[in-house]
Amino acid sequence: MCAPHVMSWVERNLSRREVLGLAAGLAAYASSAQAQGQVAGRAFSNVLDLTHVASPNFPMFPGARPMRITELVTVKKDGYYGNLLEIWEHTGTHMDAPAHFVDGAPTAEALPVNRLIAPLAVINIKAKADRNPDAEVTIDDILAWERSFGRLPNGAFVAMYSGWESRVNDPKAYVNQDSAGVQHYPGFSPAAAEFLVRERNIVGVGVDTLSLDFGASRDFKSHVVFLGAGKYGLENLANLGAVRPSGAMIIVGGPKHKGASGGPTRAMAIW
Amino acid sequence: MCAPHVMSWVERNLSRREVLGLAAGLAAYASSAQAQGQVAGRAFSNVLDLTHVASPNFPMFPGARPMRITELVTVKKDGYYGNLLEIWEHTGTHMDAPAHFVDGAPTAEALPVNRLIAPLAVINIKAKADRNPDAEVTIDDILAWERSFGRLPNGAFVAMYSGWESRVNDPKAYVNQDSAGVQHYPGFSPAAAEFLVRERNIVGVGVDTLSLDFGASRDFKSHVVFLGAGKYGLENLANLGAVRPSGAMIIVGGPKHKGASGGPTRAMAIW
Repeated sequence: MCAPHVMSWVERNLSRREVLGLAAGLAAYASSAQAQGQVAGRAFSNVLDLTHVASPNFPMFPGARPMRITELVTVKKDGYYGNLLEIWEHTGTHMDAPAHFVDGAPTAEALPVNRLIAPLAVINIKAKADRNPDAEVTIDDILAWERSFGRLPNGAFVAMYSGWESRVNDPKAYVNQDSAGVQHYPGFSPAAAEFLVRERNIVGVGVDTLSLDFGASRDFKSHVVFLGAGKYGLENLANLGAVRPSGAMIIVGGPKHKGASGGPTRAMAIW
Repeated sequence: MCAPHVMSWVERNLSRREVLGLAAGLAAYASSAQAQGQVAGRAFSNVLDLTHVASPNFPMFPGARPMRITELVTVKKDGYYGNLLEIWEHTGTHMDAPAHFVDGAPTAEALPVNRLIAPLAVINIKAKADRNPDAEVTIDDILAWERSFGRLPNGAFVAMYSGWESRVNDPKAYVNQDSAGVQHYPGFSPAAAEFLVRERNIVGVGVDTLSLDFGASRDFKSHVVFLGAGKYGLENLANLGAVRPSGAMIIVGGPKHKGASGGPTRAMAIW
């Protein structure tokens, strides 16, 4: 069994005080986990799956072990069919809970359920990502979205659509490492992360790539900003190009096992 | 690694023709898997989590191995936190896909997404389950629900609420085996399963116990009827006593990995 040993960058590059400062706002929230809540739901008649099919061939963050699926019983031999899954929590379309980067922050199963249904804002940066794999969602991209659709709704889930999904069946192209091993794909810039966390009221963010940070990030700063503020992330989202940029809601069928740093998530859009 | 070897009852007790007959209706449906669809959504403002926290201590069907959670990295040592999960697909609050009992029937990831959002009907049999752990949902229970709330809506998800959840933190009481190893807890009767599959139009069924069939079942007939007709099941649902019996919708954040016989599912009710 190989442990993913990807990055101790965070500890090295961010002071403990910085992480603790960001985590301070979590105290009240972490104690509010609840099975029932209010949401700003609307009528809807369409549903779109935002989830890829996970498999042993799904692209992984370098160093992480692909999932294994072991057939334990079959209808022919045993009368019923079932598998054992061995799966690193951060596989396929999955959640990063705040605890993934911040000690003492909420684990996935502790997130209040009303944070799992949220107005969905899709920031489309496909045009620049087509030209530059290192493209990032900037504050300007967010403000451009707001000029078209109005201020981000309270409690929004903000997703980056970069079109990167077109590479998902070619793991090498999706992870896109250069000769030095540095990955190249789009993500949220740390400045945009700070803006969303400080200037707007969001529940979480998502990307159609392997990481909330762009691939070339050395400090995972956007992760730390988002998760440190108690927001969750979704990575490897599907079909974001087929959902309206504003006016849909996301439903986050997130993991619910003990101590979850995250885990496979069934995400859907409704409108 | 111990394989669950629970039941080859099905093969022995049901003729191949019977299974094939039930499976015949699947052909058109199995080919219609789709990422986008129409649903009869309504406005909503409440959400209720129907999902238990899975853990190595969660009650298991006899013979099945409890999940393991292995911490691979921690924030203190590695800068980030994450776990490896080893999990039998039928653990915690989870889905049984049609393929769990019927060769060639749809696996979980192939279910059309619009079957995962459905009008929720909760059949409350707590009073009789309190008196008799072998209580079953009968056709009469379904008809009694319909006298109160009208005919089951098209595309409904029908859930049994037996109150069994009060035992979930005591695995021995939840599995409730007698001295001969026979389990005793409520489920759907095969006659009720036949009625729902033939006389009504449902997408799936759920229970707040370990099995769609009652614990003492020797032939898993209700499983075979439901799954053989292309319906999915959810087992170990939570909080069904807190949702209205009619007028809510269920959102089924089901598993989406390759060849899934089922898997951990985040289920929620909205109304």
